[in-house]
Amino acid sequence: MSSPPQAEIKFRTQNQLSELFAALDSGTGQEVRRMLKTLTPQSIAQLLESSPPRIRQVLWNLIDRDVEGEVLQELTDEVRSQILDTMDTEEMVEIMEGLDADDIADILQQLPERVVSEVLSAMTETDRLRVESVLAYDENTAGGLMDTNTISVRPNLSLDVVLRYLRRHEQLPESTDSLFVVNRKGQYIGLLPLSKLLTTDPAVTVREVVNTDVEPIPADMRDTEVARLFEKYDWITAPVVDEDNRLLGRITIDDIVDVIREGADHSLMSLAGLDEEEDTFAPVRRTARRRALWLGINLLTALLASWVISLFQNTLDKVVALAVLMPIVASMGGVAGSQTLTVVIRGMALGQIGKSNLSWLLSRELASAALNALLWALVMGVIAALWFSDVTIAIIIVAAMVINLITAALAGAILPVALRAMRIDPALAGGVALTTVTDVVGFMSFLGLATWHFG
Amino acid sequence: MSSPPQAEIKFRTQNQLSELFAALDSGTGQEVRRMLKTLTPQSIAQLLESSPPRIRQVLWNLIDRDVEGEVLQELTDEVRSQILDTMDTEEMVEIMEGLDADDIADILQQLPERVVSEVLSAMTETDRLRVESVLAYDENTAGGLMDTNTISVRPNLSLDVVLRYLRRHEQLPESTDSLFVVNRKGQYIGLLPLSKLLTTDPAVTVREVVNTDVEPIPADMRDTEVARLFEKYDWITAPVVDEDNRLLGRITIDDIVDVIREGADHSLMSLAGLDEEEDTFAPVRRTARRRALWLGINLLTALLASWVISLFQNTLDKVVALAVLMPIVASMGGVAGSQTLTVVIRGMALGQIGKSNLSWLLSRELASAALNALLWALVMGVIAALWFSDVTIAIIIVAAMVINLITAALAGAILPVALRAMRIDPALAGGVALTTVTDVVGFMSFLGLATWHFG
Repeated sequence: MSSPPQAEIKFRTQNQLSELFAALDSGTGQEVRRMLKTLTPQSIAQLLESSPPRIRQVLWNLIDRDVEGEVLQELTDEVRSQILDTMDTEEMVEIMEGLDADDIADILQQLPERVVSEVLSAMTETDRLRVESVLAYDENTAGGLMDTNTISVRPNLSLDVVLRYLRRHEQLPESTDSLFVVNRKGQYIGLLPLSKLLTTDPAVTVREVVNTDVEPIPADMRDTEVARLFEKYDWITAPVVDEDNRLLGRITIDDIVDVIREGADHSLMSLAGLDEEEDTFAPVRRTARRRALWLGINLLTALLASWVISLFQNTLDKVVALAVLMPIVASMGGVAGSQTLTVVIRGMALGQIGKSNLSWLLSRELASAALNALLWALVMGVIAALWFSDVTIAIIIVAAMVINLITAALAGAILPVALRAMRIDPALAGGVALTTVTDVVGFMSFLGLATWHFG
Repeated sequence: MSSPPQAEIKFRTQNQLSELFAALDSGTGQEVRRMLKTLTPQSIAQLLESSPPRIRQVLWNLIDRDVEGEVLQELTDEVRSQILDTMDTEEMVEIMEGLDADDIADILQQLPERVVSEVLSAMTETDRLRVESVLAYDENTAGGLMDTNTISVRPNLSLDVVLRYLRRHEQLPESTDSLFVVNRKGQYIGLLPLSKLLTTDPAVTVREVVNTDVEPIPADMRDTEVARLFEKYDWITAPVVDEDNRLLGRITIDDIVDVIREGADHSLMSLAGLDEEEDTFAPVRRTARRRALWLGINLLTALLASWVISLFQNTLDKVVALAVLMPIVASMGGVAGSQTLTVVIRGMALGQIGKSNLSWLLSRELASAALNALLWALVMGVIAALWFSDVTIAIIIVAAMVINLITAALAGAILPVALRAMRIDPALAGGVALTTVTDVVGFMSFLGLATWHFG
């Protein structure tokens, strides 16, 4: 891995981008090539992700052949697959030379079956077996994340033997901070941290110092679950085992950081109907197509709200002030509900919310909503009374707002839990479902109360 | 650190919670105390965070004295400060014994000045100096994150000497995977990974194998910036230096994971006017008070939209169908805008968006919005024409939707950038500002066009 030059950290991506774009504009590929040579694969990957599609392709063609693999491995899935689409198999094989098995598997998982077997057959036997052992697992499981390049030792060895064994290595696999202790059958026993190895009397055996604190991770555990364990126990490295407790590989925290980032982005992006892997600089057609569905779903819910309003056309015809005020009732319900929804979705993502505390949470939300409903409904009541010089309208809006804000809290707390129980992603469907409830209940209560009085 | 027992990982927090609540209900503190003894500090912290306030206090009182410190350090700031509020200085001093300097500093930063000095004066000289050196830096900087407990060596030593020096240690500081190479003045030169130390000929000097890849981090760098570097370069450990490049301490990836999690949560929570540190189980009064302000701000923007509608009361009085359809125009604008806003806010958080690519992004958003506006406006036009048997209304809603969806894309892309330039958090203010724009423009264009025709 090349070294990030001193200057680079102070320079931000944005400056690099401006310089690169200027160099590209002036049309000298040589200048850009020279600039790219001074950057680390990570920085180049970030530049690619920050570039519109056409520039992205031009940049990619100017990158040095021997860093292409490393750059590819740093890219997000979506940007990577765009670039892979432009390559033939030969190029792919060439690029993947020198990458770790888990990174190669990551890339292969995005390619069509036919290409995968071609790439695999062009690899050396050892490499192919390594990659295949990772490919056997789903991308979103511990097995799909693991690196099979580990060093393992037996418990009956003395540390002195281990030290001599290590010294025979040119270098240890990247980010190695622990060796794995396994028995004769290759079953995982514990970790031997390098720091322990260095501070303990070499005459001692591995068995006497093995650290059994770190739980082995089953290869089929979900990556988000693995990430939660890493976060909780501050692990740096953890072993991955099969159902017979045999050591398959290791997961290091740097693989986990991406999982954490994506998991946290998931709620944010889903609430707007977007994918957490979404390429910020996706081309127009892809962007338009992806968002169309979401807008269509929202049109349906908006139509439902309109239909509710249409039930009260006679009343609206009589009292036009109702048309002026009705969006306030719906909007305040939407805001109150989305606050509750966001807290509950985040709490669920952090694994905090379950049967035992849901009822407490629900009553807290209801109580809090009731307090705020009273406060702002009264404020709005006074404003409405002064604005339209009509106390009846004021009373109606106070009542409707109280009803809608309490409904909003109820919906915001219950919807995500109910959606999860139905195996629907609460972050994706929760927002639309909530707005539908608060719009319908908002218009219904306000116009319904008005119709009951004026109609 | 105690070991997570085999069973624990299979058990989920929710099961533990149910069991604990059941034990608490049956009133036997002894049983709960016994259950807590089987859990790691991390699990206990998660249980506390998943408990309503009253149970939280009861649980805290049942925790073993000697794990209290570790549990405290695992808690989020907000939950921790609730618990600290119930302690006197003596208890605090007792609890902080045995914690690392950075963790103690973390806790002290939340306490009033007077308590801090009392706690500091009760510590040993070495410990106090360590804690004070961390306290000198803002909590949200590299200095505030760092652990001062490092092992450093000189470049002229042979590895053999280093090995013998390490063997004199009982154990190395937690998560040590590298030693720090510094010169006579204590200035940072590079890293000596333990794995390198173990695979290299002991006769070689440190200077010959020192790794200068990892850039030292200035103590005043923002924690989010530090996190981005760790993510980008897959670092496990990085040195922190002062302005003279003197080594002050180290940051390890496990401290960074929390920063990444909080940073990613920030956008999600802010869009709903919430704090990323928000305690899911905060008491009613605190919850209600915090949300009140946000609801008040939204009431103001809703009033603005209502005022716009009120300008067209005469038209609404003539054509009541307008009142039925107007929320659709506003709502579709809001949804389209929030998609653009979310993509831009996430792109900004990832450091992808700047002057050089903003105009491309803006035109992509406009083009994508135009395509979807045409599609859904036409669909809505047909529905409106059939529903109200009125082609004029259909044409008006088509035009208004196209205007509002394009405005929404424009606002969604420009608002976050403009807010950032004004040093206002785009995630916090962006959502409200956007809805205000799409509501006002939505009602204005639809009712304005209608007034121009019918009025």
